[in-house]
Amino acid sequence: MPFTTRHKVRFQHCDPAGIVFYPRYFEMINAVVEDWFAEVVGHDFSTLHVTSRTSVPTASLETDFHAPSRLGETLTFELAVRAVGRTSLALRIVARCGDQPRLTCDATLVFVDLESGRPLPWPETMRHHFVIDCPRGCPDE
Amino acid sequence: MPFTTRHKVRFQHCDPAGIVFYPRYFEMINAVVEDWFAEVVGHDFSTLHVTSRTSVPTASLETDFHAPSRLGETLTFELAVRAVGRTSLALRIVARCGDQPRLTCDATLVFVDLESGRPLPWPETMRHHFVIDCPRGCPDE
Amino acid sequence: MPFTTRHKVRFQHCDPAGIVFYPRYFEMINAVVEDWFAEVVGHDFSTLHVTSRTSVPTASLETDFHAPSRLGETLTFELAVRAVGRTSLALRIVARCGDQPRLTCDATLVFVDLESGRPLPWPETMRHHFVIDCPRGCPDE
Amino acid sequence: MPFTTRHKVRFQHCDPAGIVFYPRYFEMINAVVEDWFAEVVGHDFSTLHVTSRTSVPTASLETDFHAPSRLGETLTFELAVRAVGRTSLALRIVARCGDQPRLTCDATLVFVDLESGRPLPWPETMRHHFVIDCPRGCPDE
Repeated sequence: MPFTTRHKVRFQHCDPAGIVFYPRYFEMINAVVEDWFAEVVGHDFSTLHVTSRTSVPTASLETDFHAPSRLGETLTFELAVRAVGRTSLALRIVARCGDQPRLTCDATLVFVDLESGRPLPWPETMRHHFVIDCPRGCPDE
Repeated sequence: MPFTTRHKVRFQHCDPAGIVFYPRYFEMINAVVEDWFAEVVGHDFSTLHVTSRTSVPTASLETDFHAPSRLGETLTFELAVRAVGRTSLALRIVARCGDQPRLTCDATLVFVDLESGRPLPWPETMRHHFVIDCPRGCPDE
Repeated sequence: MPFTTRHKVRFQHCDPAGIVFYPRYFEMINAVVEDWFAEVVGHDFSTLHVTSRTSVPTASLETDFHAPSRLGETLTFELAVRAVGRTSLALRIVARCGDQPRLTCDATLVFVDLESGRPLPWPETMRHHFVIDCPRGCPDE
Repeated sequence: MPFTTRHKVRFQHCDPAGIVFYPRYFEMINAVVEDWFAEVVGHDFSTLHVTSRTSVPTASLETDFHAPSRLGETLTFELAVRAVGRTSLALRIVARCGDQPRLTCDATLVFVDLESGRPLPWPETMRHHFVIDCPRGCPDE
């Protein structure tokens, strides 16, 4: 079952065209991933970065923007696991306003050691929370 | 010949891991597109948005992050035209530090009317500046 | 009684020193003001900007940063009204983590017409929600 | 003589009112301080943070916004030293568009050890570049 969270479209997200400036969507997407790591995977970003000296940088992104989002709207984000690698993780994040799709983002993260920048195998304490939702339970584009 | 410009990796771009936080790359990419419209296409974003009441929202993005970028580095961005549609434009943006590739981003923009949000055909004054560089002169990934 | 809301210190707010980069505090402060307008003053920023074609730009800011905030902390923001002018509004915003003060910000906003940029008198529907909390009920610095 | 640099008002800086969103001004101000440290003080932010494990957090800010800035304008920033303390530094940053003042910001920075967060005396290699310009040569508000 995909992880779900909501973000309000704030003044700070909007551009002179009155719609979300797309780099701000990626701040929201990063916040969705951050909350999913804290609430589902059980490793908050502070522990991950500061205590464990690891990180989960983004290796690739494929994003389709279906329709613009406007100031004051509330977006519902769903995050689902598409695939799990030894050191990587493929996620799908979908944002909607009501039943209108706004974006579909396929992101691939890598687990790395902060000092060396080298990929690390996911520890079992994290990996067993990576339950593949897609393609069956995958949020529609 | 691709359009080339440079961005310094500033304090404001970097995250607690000491590397560029990827939403900040998209701010740089948007600035590259903005400068290309002003300097090559001959339509700056102020005229485009405020005077003409049009916009060039991003419809899709495919981005590969090849290696992290660090505080103080200078990135060279190249922008090339991949394909021109009636109302859309496919660009490739590549960023490097020296000869090290950092990211490759394939972006598709759409020309729209700001009031209706509807796609508009590119005016001939813009279109004749859209010279396809790829695949031949396309910056390597 | 001051208006209270909370913001989590996210990855996107933190700099290479691992603490909140101060321009991100101002994004949080703007969000606090935005929520106060929607929830207390009864005019959300979408109605204010898009429908009424007005805005509330910041004319001045005095901010003291008492201690750094770190990734994963939750900050409690209090907003109190210091003074009400014909076209302006003086607010105090204080952020704390637990009982530790993090910042005190005295902000002066102006109500303006978006087209002309000229100050407008606050409409009575907004003004009667501007209840002065300070100095008595003013959040301590 | 104040240090001078320029920033273009980009799409990413502007809000739905079509003017610079004030937290973006603080990103520009931070970039001005960053360039001044690299070019005048002779310590770039990468050396300062990554190599020396020190930082220059902002302790207080007083900012007046004189007039809005619009997409496509070029702002000239001047930075002058107001006062030098044992561990602190008081700066004035003024931004103008042509001869129109846009903002005046009095900022106080502190030199700190990154691990402990404790203030450090400015090293002589930095201090001898802190030449007081104000009040005489201070940029007008």
